[in-house]
Amino acid sequence: MADSGERAGERVGGVEALLFDVFGTVVDWRGSIARLGADFAAGRDLGTVDWTAFADAWRARYQPAMAAVREGRRPFAKLDVLHRENLDAILPDFGLEALDEAARAELNLFWHRLDPWPDSVPGMTRLKRRFIVAAQSNGNVSLMVEMARHGGLPWDAILGAEVVGYYKPRPEAYLEACARLDRPPGRCVMVAAHNDDLAAAAACGLKTAFVRRPKEKAPGQDADLAPSGDWDLVAEDLEDLAAQLGC
Amino acid sequence: MADSGERAGERVGGVEALLFDVFGTVVDWRGSIARLGADFAAGRDLGTVDWTAFADAWRARYQPAMAAVREGRRPFAKLDVLHRENLDAILPDFGLEALDEAARAELNLFWHRLDPWPDSVPGMTRLKRRFIVAAQSNGNVSLMVEMARHGGLPWDAILGAEVVGYYKPRPEAYLEACARLDRPPGRCVMVAAHNDDLAAAAACGLKTAFVRRPKEKAPGQDADLAPSGDWDLVAEDLEDLAAQLGC
Repeated sequence: MADSGERAGERVGGVEALLFDVFGTVVDWRGSIARLGADFAAGRDLGTVDWTAFADAWRARYQPAMAAVREGRRPFAKLDVLHRENLDAILPDFGLEALDEAARAELNLFWHRLDPWPDSVPGMTRLKRRFIVAAQSNGNVSLMVEMARHGGLPWDAILGAEVVGYYKPRPEAYLEACARLDRPPGRCVMVAAHNDDLAAAAACGLKTAFVRRPKEKAPGQDADLAPSGDWDLVAEDLEDLAAQLGC
Repeated sequence: MADSGERAGERVGGVEALLFDVFGTVVDWRGSIARLGADFAAGRDLGTVDWTAFADAWRARYQPAMAAVREGRRPFAKLDVLHRENLDAILPDFGLEALDEAARAELNLFWHRLDPWPDSVPGMTRLKRRFIVAAQSNGNVSLMVEMARHGGLPWDAILGAEVVGYYKPRPEAYLEACARLDRPPGRCVMVAAHNDDLAAAAACGLKTAFVRRPKEKAPGQDADLAPSGDWDLVAEDLEDLAAQLGC
């Protein structure tokens, strides 16, 4: 580990802040939505719903919905709004089109109560001793605040799309986040389980840390199982990242 | 205290989030700047400087500098920028005009290292159990992040002028902060030691809590020693506020 830490130190010398992707990197959206869906269904007469498939279907509409904002086809809308549109779109596919407004609002807040991976809170707590730890997620502020309160995530700051006005992977999303922290991009590390997020951050001059999250997605999916670029750090989880950074 | 808590409950029923003024309400800017100034001077040949007077002179230019932004006479500029302009303006009055760029930059960061009042961290920690606790300060994000790390302030979120794009007491400052938390103003309490801040918040529909900070300003100043409006809560400090809110 000493060697590993030394190598990590060489590549990320001078770093002062860690910007985290959240969905998938810090929290388990798929397992959480499936569990919350099962809890929601208990005591309701909803028929048989595959809540893991429901989570996958909901998430599948995530990138296309943001693309409309990124490409200027609609004004900025926060993720709660996009999540709700996507929810309304998939409910019929699961025989849930009869759910009323209150039930839909309740479902939409599932994203505010996603559980951290087991290493996330201890890893972030260690990392926070030496580095600013900030959320740079596409999630909106209230979503991130409630998720942090739910899971005990010790953010120094919640930045992200609603604060900076741009969805990742638009370059402004990374550059504005660094600017809010008054740090040049080279003193910030983007921490993510997704290669495209890291590629966009690296193009803006940020350092990069890939975190392996092999359980994030459906078993058949093979994206992001391994780093696809020459990232500055590759970590098994956030505790390993803390160890590599000497925290 | 039970009576007090009951009355407080009636007036702030349904509240979910507390928005805090920070300079003066949560941290002691005057005592901290004076102490940091004395530390800065130690070992430097600066002559005799009254650092408390220096703090007062620096702070006296705070509202006028923001007024230019509020009134549209200049574009939004974050508080670090305004603080630096104000610093450059007062240095000659204290015989410090010879300080170089590095020294001025170091002085300007004093605002990032202000100390909390003794009750602030324990009070906020109690309040956080039941309510979202968010900074709604005119300070910029990096200032608030570093101050929180310095003093251990357990914010759920750092909002404020740089996030919402407006300086208090512009109404947008309050309304946009509530919007970021997805709460109507009536479910948010503005917590401040300054009557004008509370008056502006109340006009936007927020609840109000006045916190007495008799040591914030120079002994001769008599502003804000007592509540001047019919605020929903009046607290001796943040621990008292927690007690009144049943935390």
